[in-house]
Amino acid sequence: MLLKVIAMAEENIVYVGKKPTMNYVLAIVTQFNSNVDKITIKARGKAISKAVDIAEITKNRFMPNAKYSNIKIETEKVEGERGESNVSSIEITMKKE
Amino acid sequence: MLLKVIAMAEENIVYVGKKPTMNYVLAIVTQFNSNVDKITIKARGKAISKAVDIAEITKNRFMPNAKYSNIKIETEKVEGERGESNVSSIEITMKKE
Repeated sequence: MLLKVIAMAEENIVYVGKKPTMNYVLAIVTQFNSNVDKITIKARGKAISKAVDIAEITKNRFMPNAKYSNIKIETEKVEGERGESNVSSIEITMKKE
Repeated sequence: MLLKVIAMAEENIVYVGKKPTMNYVLAIVTQFNSNVDKITIKARGKAISKAVDIAEITKNRFMPNAKYSNIKIETEKVEGERGESNVSSIEITMKKE
C-alpha cells in the first residue's frame, strides 16, 4: 500500500523537454481528470519558458479551477561534456481546488 | 514628495529584453547597493528563462542575503502584426533582507 502511494506521487511530476507544448498540457489535463489533485511541472534552462506556457494554457483553457500552490526557482549543477555547469530550473505546482 | 516616491517605485522594475544576462544582473546589484530594498524582474515569452537566470545569478553570486518574496506567472495579451495574441509572463520580486 505504501509503495502504491509513492508510485502515484512520482507520476505527478511532469518534466518538460523537447516535445510540443500541447503534449504536456494534455498529459496534465488527463492526470487532473483521473483523480490527481496536485501536479508539479519541472523544467531547466531554455525549457523554463515552455513550462510557464504549459502551466498557463492548462489553467486558462482547460482547468479554470486549478491554482498555483507553489512556484520555485533554483540553480542545479549539471554534468556536461565540458565538466560541471550551472543551470536554472523552475518547479510550478498546480492544485485542483 | 509623493511624486518622488512613485518615481522610485517605477525604477525598481527591471524589464528583461535582448541584452546579455550579466547587464541585467549588474543593473540589479547596482540598485540593491544604492538603498533599493525590493526589485521586480519582469519578462515575457522566451525571455522568461533569462529572467530566472538573472534572478538566480544575482542571488547566488552577488546578493546571498536576498530572498524571493513573490514569483507570479500569468498570460498577457499582445498586439502584433497579425492581431492579438497571448504571451506568458513572469514577475520575480526580490527583497534584500
